Amino acid sequence: MNSYRVQKDDDVTIKVLFCGICHTDLHIAKNEWGNALYPIVPGHEIVGVVTDVGPGVESFKAGDTVGVGYFIDSCRSCDTCSKGYENYCSTLVLTSNGVDYDGATTQGGFSDVLVVNQDYVLRVPESLSLAGAAPLLCAGVTVYSPMMQYGLNAPGKHLGVVGLGGLGHMAVKFGKAFRMTVTVISSSPRKREEALERLGADAFLVSQDAEQMKAAAGTMDGIIDTVSAGHPLVPLLELLKPMGQMVVVGAPSEPLALPAYAIIGGGKRVAGNGVGSVSSCQAMLDFAGKHGITADVEVVKMDYVNTAVERLERNDVRYRFVIDVAGSQLDAAA
Amino acid sequence: MNSYRVQKDDDVTIKVLFCGICHTDLHIAKNEWGNALYPIVPGHEIVGVVTDVGPGVESFKAGDTVGVGYFIDSCRSCDTCSKGYENYCSTLVLTSNGVDYDGATTQGGFSDVLVVNQDYVLRVPESLSLAGAAPLLCAGVTVYSPMMQYGLNAPGKHLGVVGLGGLGHMAVKFGKAFRMTVTVISSSPRKREEALERLGADAFLVSQDAEQMKAAAGTMDGIIDTVSAGHPLVPLLELLKPMGQMVVVGAPSEPLALPAYAIIGGGKRVAGNGVGSVSSCQAMLDFAGKHGITADVEVVKMDYVNTAVERLERNDVRYRFVIDVAGSQLDAAA
Repeated sequence: MNSYRVQKDDDVTIKVLFCGICHTDLHIAKNEWGNALYPIVPGHEIVGVVTDVGPGVESFKAGDTVGVGYFIDSCRSCDTCSKGYENYCSTLVLTSNGVDYDGATTQGGFSDVLVVNQDYVLRVPESLSLAGAAPLLCAGVTVYSPMMQYGLNAPGKHLGVVGLGGLGHMAVKFGKAFRMTVTVISSSPRKREEALERLGADAFLVSQDAEQMKAAAGTMDGIIDTVSAGHPLVPLLELLKPMGQMVVVGAPSEPLALPAYAIIGGGKRVAGNGVGSVSSCQAMLDFAGKHGITADVEVVKMDYVNTAVERLERNDVRYRFVIDVAGSQLDAAA
Repeated sequence: MNSYRVQKDDDVTIKVLFCGICHTDLHIAKNEWGNALYPIVPGHEIVGVVTDVGPGVESFKAGDTVGVGYFIDSCRSCDTCSKGYENYCSTLVLTSNGVDYDGATTQGGFSDVLVVNQDYVLRVPESLSLAGAAPLLCAGVTVYSPMMQYGLNAPGKHLGVVGLGGLGHMAVKFGKAFRMTVTVISSSPRKREEALERLGADAFLVSQDAEQMKAAAGTMDGIIDTVSAGHPLVPLLELLKPMGQMVVVGAPSEPLALPAYAIIGGGKRVAGNGVGSVSSCQAMLDFAGKHGITADVEVVKMDYVNTAVERLERNDVRYRFVIDVAGSQLDAAA
């Protein structure tokens, strides 16, 4: 399949190797947010290899290992873009199911080829497993970016991670790489061993266990809340130290209940976060390369996608499906 | 009436001159929060004159004009106190209806005399009207402190102030003194003239007017939300620029509804704030002295308190009742 976009002077043409499947792909494909532009080509956790570049491209050349994340362009002139937070640009062009500035509907990483402006292409450290690196482009930066923004990256600080899925397991890995104390908070007691032994978290709390939660009250500098189902905020806010920061990256469909007293008493903060800027994403990839951080993935072939989506809907994956788009891994092993 | 506390080496004895009436006094007196320690002596917006000091007091002397705010002591050793945010100390000793470290119930500013440790006494600039300065000690610092903390104090930035009462009118005054653009958002169209002409706000939005609200979407750097009745957050969050900061200082009894999408899309933040530290309160008083900022008050005698409380409950005051405890103003004028 060709790209919807013809390579221009500043564009990079990328052969897609791997593409992660994010919950957002499900929401869009099923039009749960009412904004689907059918036919949809999903995928925004993309790792590939450069096959060609336009004459204006200086930072990339054929053969480079690169990544593309949640968006492929922004206006570059608004206040938000000027400050380097183009992920919050009001005319952000999403990688999949977005509208490009020429009016075309964008097509994501479930394709053979992507053509992307060089300023929105990331360098992927070659030391990393490429399949494991793909989810860094969305899940990784979505937790890394607010950790950096809110100072949740300092050795010895205590980080809570709510929910152990695609986003949560990345937050645990980054937290440990920052040499923080990391506590996983989950509604599933069966995730304890997983959290402590496989991911190296320091502690595990069952969110429904009021005694455990009370014992941990006031101990955390920050919390990354990745849960995308409805859940009570107050028991989580109570885990924070005064002036502690909660970051919401999961998107439950029902509003969260936020009693004013739960944030006024300790001067606590609740922030939302949507992915991260290009520079934050590159910094995250460089950090991941240095520390050998990738997502835990199950690599599948393109013809397994429908099954993968069904399994993803019941959270039956540790922790991310990644499609071997070019058959470079599974076909080679077969 | 004497203080519950005998003057110790580091204590300052204060003759109370003026004391504001805050909504918190009502909540406590009516035991709406279930924590009343009857008999209650309310009052934590106190201005008075020093009449005596212990031998260890170096910063104050008899005759000084001083203030006392929401709290009169803290542990001084916890992490929060060490960082200078003693207002969030978990064993904070409230000025009224609190428990002192010796076990005594504290008695607030509706009294003739207060004895307070010197480290929790504020200097009140003598240039200010003393009655108008009293509400600065709680209402003033409650809005000033988060404005400083979150960078909502820079010329040219756009501040939204939701609700025009004791807290809201102070936020407008500080915002204008910081040379910000200030927009008042209120459910009452009848407050327009008040906001624009009396307080000098730059714009006024009726929160129920969807068209007005939409026209102002994405324009504000920060919002101080002072409303203590239930109200929708989403239309307010939409007023914020990307990465904008809302500060909740009013305390509705029902939880606020916070849809994750409303903060994720723009990386927006909602913070609670409870008063401010001693140093923040002193900085606020110094700033108020320099800029001639006081609260708009209605000065009443102590025997009017019950009527004032009834009027306060129906928001029938512009904007703060202050009791002339020592009769220094009203008796002199009579």
